[in-house]
Amino acid sequence: MQIGMIGLGRMGANIVRRLMKKGGHHAFVYDISEQAVAALAAEGATAATDLEDFVRKLEKPRAVWIMLPAGAVTESTIATIAGLLDGDDVIIDGGNTFWQDDIRRAGTLREKGIHYVDVGTSGGVWGFERGYCMMIGGERAVVDRLDPIFAALAPGHGDIPKTPSRDGRDPRVEQGYLHTGPVGSGHFVKMVHNGIEYGLMQAYAEGFDILRNANVPALPEQHRFKLDLADIAEVWRRGSVISSWLLDLTASALARSETLEAYSGFVADSGEGRWTVNAAIDEAVPAEVLTAALFARFRSRQQHTFAEKILSAMREGFGGHKEPGEADPSTKERTANR
Amino acid sequence: MQIGMIGLGRMGANIVRRLMKKGGHHAFVYDISEQAVAALAAEGATAATDLEDFVRKLEKPRAVWIMLPAGAVTESTIATIAGLLDGDDVIIDGGNTFWQDDIRRAGTLREKGIHYVDVGTSGGVWGFERGYCMMIGGERAVVDRLDPIFAALAPGHGDIPKTPSRDGRDPRVEQGYLHTGPVGSGHFVKMVHNGIEYGLMQAYAEGFDILRNANVPALPEQHRFKLDLADIAEVWRRGSVISSWLLDLTASALARSETLEAYSGFVADSGEGRWTVNAAIDEAVPAEVLTAALFARFRSRQQHTFAEKILSAMREGFGGHKEPGEADPSTKERTANR
Amino acid sequence: MQIGMIGLGRMGANIVRRLMKKGGHHAFVYDISEQAVAALAAEGATAATDLEDFVRKLEKPRAVWIMLPAGAVTESTIATIAGLLDGDDVIIDGGNTFWQDDIRRAGTLREKGIHYVDVGTSGGVWGFERGYCMMIGGERAVVDRLDPIFAALAPGHGDIPKTPSRDGRDPRVEQGYLHTGPVGSGHFVKMVHNGIEYGLMQAYAEGFDILRNANVPALPEQHRFKLDLADIAEVWRRGSVISSWLLDLTASALARSETLEAYSGFVADSGEGRWTVNAAIDEAVPAEVLTAALFARFRSRQQHTFAEKILSAMREGFGGHKEPGEADPSTKERTANR
Amino acid sequence: MQIGMIGLGRMGANIVRRLMKKGGHHAFVYDISEQAVAALAAEGATAATDLEDFVRKLEKPRAVWIMLPAGAVTESTIATIAGLLDGDDVIIDGGNTFWQDDIRRAGTLREKGIHYVDVGTSGGVWGFERGYCMMIGGERAVVDRLDPIFAALAPGHGDIPKTPSRDGRDPRVEQGYLHTGPVGSGHFVKMVHNGIEYGLMQAYAEGFDILRNANVPALPEQHRFKLDLADIAEVWRRGSVISSWLLDLTASALARSETLEAYSGFVADSGEGRWTVNAAIDEAVPAEVLTAALFARFRSRQQHTFAEKILSAMREGFGGHKEPGEADPSTKERTANR
Repeated sequence: MQIGMIGLGRMGANIVRRLMKKGGHHAFVYDISEQAVAALAAEGATAATDLEDFVRKLEKPRAVWIMLPAGAVTESTIATIAGLLDGDDVIIDGGNTFWQDDIRRAGTLREKGIHYVDVGTSGGVWGFERGYCMMIGGERAVVDRLDPIFAALAPGHGDIPKTPSRDGRDPRVEQGYLHTGPVGSGHFVKMVHNGIEYGLMQAYAEGFDILRNANVPALPEQHRFKLDLADIAEVWRRGSVISSWLLDLTASALARSETLEAYSGFVADSGEGRWTVNAAIDEAVPAEVLTAALFARFRSRQQHTFAEKILSAMREGFGGHKEPGEADPSTKERTANR
Repeated sequence: MQIGMIGLGRMGANIVRRLMKKGGHHAFVYDISEQAVAALAAEGATAATDLEDFVRKLEKPRAVWIMLPAGAVTESTIATIAGLLDGDDVIIDGGNTFWQDDIRRAGTLREKGIHYVDVGTSGGVWGFERGYCMMIGGERAVVDRLDPIFAALAPGHGDIPKTPSRDGRDPRVEQGYLHTGPVGSGHFVKMVHNGIEYGLMQAYAEGFDILRNANVPALPEQHRFKLDLADIAEVWRRGSVISSWLLDLTASALARSETLEAYSGFVADSGEGRWTVNAAIDEAVPAEVLTAALFARFRSRQQHTFAEKILSAMREGFGGHKEPGEADPSTKERTANR
Repeated sequence: MQIGMIGLGRMGANIVRRLMKKGGHHAFVYDISEQAVAALAAEGATAATDLEDFVRKLEKPRAVWIMLPAGAVTESTIATIAGLLDGDDVIIDGGNTFWQDDIRRAGTLREKGIHYVDVGTSGGVWGFERGYCMMIGGERAVVDRLDPIFAALAPGHGDIPKTPSRDGRDPRVEQGYLHTGPVGSGHFVKMVHNGIEYGLMQAYAEGFDILRNANVPALPEQHRFKLDLADIAEVWRRGSVISSWLLDLTASALARSETLEAYSGFVADSGEGRWTVNAAIDEAVPAEVLTAALFARFRSRQQHTFAEKILSAMREGFGGHKEPGEADPSTKERTANR
Repeated sequence: MQIGMIGLGRMGANIVRRLMKKGGHHAFVYDISEQAVAALAAEGATAATDLEDFVRKLEKPRAVWIMLPAGAVTESTIATIAGLLDGDDVIIDGGNTFWQDDIRRAGTLREKGIHYVDVGTSGGVWGFERGYCMMIGGERAVVDRLDPIFAALAPGHGDIPKTPSRDGRDPRVEQGYLHTGPVGSGHFVKMVHNGIEYGLMQAYAEGFDILRNANVPALPEQHRFKLDLADIAEVWRRGSVISSWLLDLTASALARSETLEAYSGFVADSGEGRWTVNAAIDEAVPAEVLTAALFARFRSRQQHTFAEKILSAMREGFGGHKEPGEADPSTKERTANR
């Protein structure tokens, strides 16, 4: 079927490419970068010169996929394109939009008869090859209309073993895409996915940190180990309880360089982790691990927190402690004495 | 080669079975349960009537695998068997022993010329079929001597993709077993494996809790979702960043029953999670996620903590708040008003 | 000066009483409960029969203090009273309002020429006697106009030692009230105050929990202590680094009953703790302790979380563990064996 | 009565000074620093030239107070002095010893008829003036024998209000010292005191961090506040629920410099915080706040953790994200867009 794609960054361009590779679809593309448009056109997509041209070329009812950075850019693009579309057309937001924005937008668009579908997409840079895991929010009939697109983008069964006890359930889920419910639910589920992702990543990260520091001088000599982290990551991939795709990636990085010296240690966070904690709070659900993982990222981006200076100021106040400019050697000694 | 197995619980018995299935090995078995011994004998192992008989039957240098509950039982069994063994024999502790106990024991046994190897084993009840992921601490020569046993128990390559950049590294790691270093390091690495496991499990658990509570009345009506957790777990298995074996198991459990009403919610912990946090503290490594996961289990096993009563007592003290016997409805209302 | 008070619950009534006790002020009072109005009238306040009557009686420019539950009730009351007030009148919200609501409301009222002041108030049920610590947001001139009210409500210097290095700073702060900045800042600072309060309370609570459980059978016998918590709380009040008013209250509760058996252990949370964590997230400030304290309250209000059932389901999946219906005795034993 | 003091650092010297100031006691002092001994001798104490001289001068049964850094120094000093003492003499360890070391040592000394008392001491550099809060473990009769010393060192009633409901309880507790139970319990209670201290400090620290960052550009402009932290700390000292001695110290530090630029932000930890978490784990008591406070200190002493590099490596693996060398500006923007 026909699909229009606005936003030809890595994600948008690869989605177009996967649709063309799978066959049976025709993509119309637009981006503020003429180069990006030309590149896709060279691979078989139909280029649009501007949004008017883009809308004109698509057959009604149109399906317009927006793949732009969440926030102001997506917001204004949707406002503009909505002014050009007709009733029964559908806008698909495939980015990392905050799910409450989806609900608000869909309400506005509904007044014009335009449908809105939010698609949370996981798979990262590997999606073109492996397929995209998609969580889709929107009206049932509209999601069904777009099914050929989702089926082409999804990973398909592959060689992943079938889960027992799923007889009678929607078989499309096993292809890697799911209609999660009404508008907003797609991005809500994707948000929680990312929240979990933060927690999983931090669990592995702390574990490898403990392994790496098993050799510090503060430990009694007979209790120190010099461990090979690359081999440990590799062996855990094979038959252990903690095998996962994230572990595969970690094993790969550690095999390249066990010290990871190429990385500064500054870790960005992208919104979903924050929103997940906000959701937990709104629901009164304790989410210690997901929150600790988020805060570890916040902390990673600062030289020192003001909180830490407050601690030092208090310690000087009651104990006369002058905090040293580096890790306190007496602490290490004390540990070693235990 | 010959192996003696003491302890024929689920793990010990299945290890024996896997060795016999793989061929080329002969197992001598002992357990305080005569039934357990008879069962394995019926499958081809050689039964021993007592430890003396067990030791007598094994060819020197003997390899004795202990697969008993960590702690007092393993401790006393090793003390007894050590009195019966000869120099150059080897004791393998395959249980969940605290790694510092390994180091202490190996020191004692060394005086008698007996070798000690600690094997951390992951794979749980699936090990017989999938193979066991093994982390092995001990002297290089002794571990090499036991290689046929480890090779038979390990999962082997299977269809797990090869990690790039591993050329020139020990190929046995890709079979699923690793010589981690000196005595104690096997259980140390297994301990951290379990610490990570706790963190991963808690990350998924919190995420599904947030999904399940996305429909609570405390939320504004337009922001509520009734989500299908079984389908969400399933779709995440396919192409998402958070796919893992633990997620496979979760998807399977949710497919059987989305409410998990068969489970009380009391969650045991088995030592390794605690020791991992202790190790982090000794190394001065922050491990918020692994610790929060451990504490969530502690909390799960109590009706109410004394800490919570202290909070209520304080709240009454400064605010005159009488804590209700159930969730405070005013809190819910206040949330809803946001 | 004249003050109008709407809302004669414990806080509102005591504020009126303190103003009357201090002298030099006249209070006009209204509440939906005629009894509450009559009670204050008997103590010297002027009763109003309805909001029109209330507004009519107050001299211009009027000062109307709203002391109602945060959320819908406060919102609608302010909307109603705003329709009755004149330009240059001022509405004071002394409740636990979300600070972003203050900013929104002040914007609306500004169009009508009505001023808005938000007052975060700490001191709880002890405020009538000890005075109220107040954090005040609003226009400088308006806050100054209300100074006589704030001065009467504040605790005053008392016998609290003067902080060194404060020469040249606003001396009113040492009376216990502070103009924190523009509208919203009063409730923002009060919100963080409560966030800190949650953290402090949880720190004491965990400490006393560790003391109380120093005698559990899971510990080796020679490492157990039966401690007197009431005496410990008392001694810490005297010269220790952790002396505080919250500790005073705890010592008092433990002196009455060391087991605190009167408390269920369900602990409410009242909005500010949640908003504090949300603020930390918006600012990318790690706030592990304040968040953990909030989550401990969420957890206290549930029999079991769904997260915990997910953990049990996973454990059964990989290890065949059947979670028991009570705390796992084998765990205790294992601890004892360490 | 007579007291011998070994270790004339700030704490030991001030304890001697307070005893002499209070009158009725005579102090015999020893330190490896002759200068330190001479200084105290000039103030009225009796100097000892070596440990033999020290022991010879003291009347039997002797009371020897050890005030040295916990660990190896204290351990070897006690071993030496024990060889010189007679039956019924008592050794008092007033340092920050690990409580299990107390129990072990007392057992050894008991064989020689020497008593052992462990005294946890809070009050820091202010103890000389304010008195020391003491938690005392040991045999009842021995602790009673030393009562004149403890009474002189303790703060006494002062003007701290009496806790209601304490009638019939040991009145000495209200002087600021407590016999907590058998040997080890004094340091155990002091350890938990310090654990709580870490939690309290971190709660305040996070709160002030949130206040300080209320003005960051990532926030929407209408939601930013520039707050005066020194004034806020001061106003909270007066009538608020979170008033405490630690807050007094914080207010004092902020009055001197609101930016605390004199502090590096590296924060030491001194053993008790770690042991408190270990105790919580042994007792299966969830202690999220005390643990998070400890980990914040660990983190403060590192430029970047290895864990953070693992996170960056994973993010590059699945998303192609190149972590920037500084805080990711796009994150800030995304927050602002909310």
